[in-house]
Amino acid sequence: MTDATPIPDLICELCRLFYGLGWVSGTGGGISIRGPEGIFIAPSGVQKERMQPEDIYLLDGDALDRAVVRRAPTNPALKISECRPLFFNAYRQRGAGAVIHSHSIWALLAARLFSPDGRPGELRCQGIEMQKGLRGVGCFDTLRVPIIANTAREAELTDSMAAAMDAYPDVDAVIVAGHGVYVWGRDWVQAKTQAECYDYLFRALVEAHRMGLPIVAT
Amino acid sequence: MTDATPIPDLICELCRLFYGLGWVSGTGGGISIRGPEGIFIAPSGVQKERMQPEDIYLLDGDALDRAVVRRAPTNPALKISECRPLFFNAYRQRGAGAVIHSHSIWALLAARLFSPDGRPGELRCQGIEMQKGLRGVGCFDTLRVPIIANTAREAELTDSMAAAMDAYPDVDAVIVAGHGVYVWGRDWVQAKTQAECYDYLFRALVEAHRMGLPIVAT
Amino acid sequence: MTDATPIPDLICELCRLFYGLGWVSGTGGGISIRGPEGIFIAPSGVQKERMQPEDIYLLDGDALDRAVVRRAPTNPALKISECRPLFFNAYRQRGAGAVIHSHSIWALLAARLFSPDGRPGELRCQGIEMQKGLRGVGCFDTLRVPIIANTAREAELTDSMAAAMDAYPDVDAVIVAGHGVYVWGRDWVQAKTQAECYDYLFRALVEAHRMGLPIVAT
Amino acid sequence: MTDATPIPDLICELCRLFYGLGWVSGTGGGISIRGPEGIFIAPSGVQKERMQPEDIYLLDGDALDRAVVRRAPTNPALKISECRPLFFNAYRQRGAGAVIHSHSIWALLAARLFSPDGRPGELRCQGIEMQKGLRGVGCFDTLRVPIIANTAREAELTDSMAAAMDAYPDVDAVIVAGHGVYVWGRDWVQAKTQAECYDYLFRALVEAHRMGLPIVAT
Repeated sequence: MTDATPIPDLICELCRLFYGLGWVSGTGGGISIRGPEGIFIAPSGVQKERMQPEDIYLLDGDALDRAVVRRAPTNPALKISECRPLFFNAYRQRGAGAVIHSHSIWALLAARLFSPDGRPGELRCQGIEMQKGLRGVGCFDTLRVPIIANTAREAELTDSMAAAMDAYPDVDAVIVAGHGVYVWGRDWVQAKTQAECYDYLFRALVEAHRMGLPIVAT
Repeated sequence: MTDATPIPDLICELCRLFYGLGWVSGTGGGISIRGPEGIFIAPSGVQKERMQPEDIYLLDGDALDRAVVRRAPTNPALKISECRPLFFNAYRQRGAGAVIHSHSIWALLAARLFSPDGRPGELRCQGIEMQKGLRGVGCFDTLRVPIIANTAREAELTDSMAAAMDAYPDVDAVIVAGHGVYVWGRDWVQAKTQAECYDYLFRALVEAHRMGLPIVAT
Repeated sequence: MTDATPIPDLICELCRLFYGLGWVSGTGGGISIRGPEGIFIAPSGVQKERMQPEDIYLLDGDALDRAVVRRAPTNPALKISECRPLFFNAYRQRGAGAVIHSHSIWALLAARLFSPDGRPGELRCQGIEMQKGLRGVGCFDTLRVPIIANTAREAELTDSMAAAMDAYPDVDAVIVAGHGVYVWGRDWVQAKTQAECYDYLFRALVEAHRMGLPIVAT
Repeated sequence: MTDATPIPDLICELCRLFYGLGWVSGTGGGISIRGPEGIFIAPSGVQKERMQPEDIYLLDGDALDRAVVRRAPTNPALKISECRPLFFNAYRQRGAGAVIHSHSIWALLAARLFSPDGRPGELRCQGIEMQKGLRGVGCFDTLRVPIIANTAREAELTDSMAAAMDAYPDVDAVIVAGHGVYVWGRDWVQAKTQAECYDYLFRALVEAHRMGLPIVAT
């Protein structure tokens, strides 16, 4: 299970996978990974599944209040992803090793179930085995995940995401209503594992609601 | 992010992708791209995911009132796609660089939500982040997309599509009831990005309707 | 669009594709193709997506009342697909060049809509562009496809399938309730195109029913 | 149809396939195969679709009351899958050749239909052709599959799974409420075939319920 792939290559490979999962279509979503050299992050507004390693930015991992570029793509038309300050929340507040941003339709729909008007709220889930893939959660625990309201520009989410992270210190995800979800982990494997578990749980909640069944055992 | 793939090869590659997305099954749908040499377009009624570069027509890009063939496939059984005049609408009226025609089931179903009887209408969507992938649209804007009635033959859609484009100058898509959608962009990347965003939004509207939930934040 | 692939290889390639589409899981379903040498057909009860060209039987194409083996797989444990007499119906009654048998869940569910008790019936569809991919059908025509009752053994379907084909001479498909669908064409390309169009239409009928919307424009 | 692939390679290949089917996301689920050398099993908590052959454990196949390691991965951070005692149930009580554990959302949702509160129960299905892919089941038989309650730790399922297997000697699957399903067979091909058939049947039951239709012909 050793993975010696360079981080820029890994980001490109994972983005192709995430595209297949429906997480990063329409240039949305993506993943940032922190390595010994710094923080790797994709450009803004590009087709995530067609990126090449040379398109990835390397930012200073010690300056987490702003973007200090260590290595930029040669293409001068590119800009750093608008998700940068949100990814940095997870690096700064949680010491994360990787952050995934997904536009999965299941995140969008599950958020609507718990916050029909798009205001801040809380998603709850209980009794599903896949909860055990999340840090510190058992399958009979009640999982609670914060939902924050969307904003016109992605960077404007920074403060409300940070506040939600403070309010839910045991949770490695913040849902954005009408938008998607941010999930992180101590490394890219845990971030991906948790993102897959959340996606499964979001779908399970939506499908059970449509079946007229409680998904939560009582 | 430079893509030096010749356009006929790119069309074949994208059609394989679109087949996987469910946009071009049963020989329906496809993509046309405009390059310096002219307009590239697929043959009619062929399996889009199995096309080879030598199957693609090259048409004169300066004669947008009719098809002037510059290079035809060697297979004499082939004919130019019936979508040709519809693709040319986008080239002529909008100076598009590429046009995608999708038979996605989400386009079909979303159109039924807003036009149950198949007559001309308007799809509306509001409050979803993926709207930001569309030219000039913010996530809190109300997106309005024209729906035109289907016709027995594809070419008969030409005038009503052109009229809908005139009526919605800020929108880069026309939905055809019971049929699918045409989406274009200044180049193939923007056309594809917008087509993916529309597909996501169409699905979100359908899924939210099935959940008994408003997808539009109020 | 010339395809020089040997037919056994093509059958294996198409079965991998059909597996991805959900048509041939659990060893069910498959495709038979008629070539100049005779009729190619898969073994019974094997994983269709993992077949190799040497697993394919070659049967005499002139003896359509029974299976005359011209070339058998070297593996003596294999038997000819139980679908053989049903495929031969299409070769004998329609001069087909290829027959696809799909267990798609959309065929199963659409059949239930029109025949909830699994008895013989008729599926109807109208107003969808993808109907135009079917031989002799326009998008405003009302498509009518026979549904026959399932039997304990596949070969027992032979007579009722043949009778349904006689009763619906303009239709290139027979649906089997609780089971799936048989679709054929003059060659494998038309058979595949028609099978894809049917699958799309079956799904559209099911999804529209679930949305509480008429799929048929009135 | 001869498959000379070494078992560790086959396990990795099948796990990539199962990941695509949605059976083993978030490190959950997997497959164990018994060969002449012993029992091959994956590590615990790893990304199943990214495993390499050298990550697979080989356990003694004659000591079915506990895990006797014959060959361990070189990575000392790995542990044997928590499913080990559950896989061993099938090896010990049924002489199975392979066992699949799937977290498919269809298993989860179908279980809820028959056991809304997550308590032990029984799933029933009747009248679907795909039942014929299951050992000893005809398409008009009523299939009955035991559902056991989930537990906080996977190994705690061992006794209730064993009891359900005793109570249903003709059935090669045990569903775990809120969790997934275990399916086995005399070899990996039958285990996979049966797992695919079950997944199809689970989905058919869920989809029919959502359509307001009986899936069981009466």
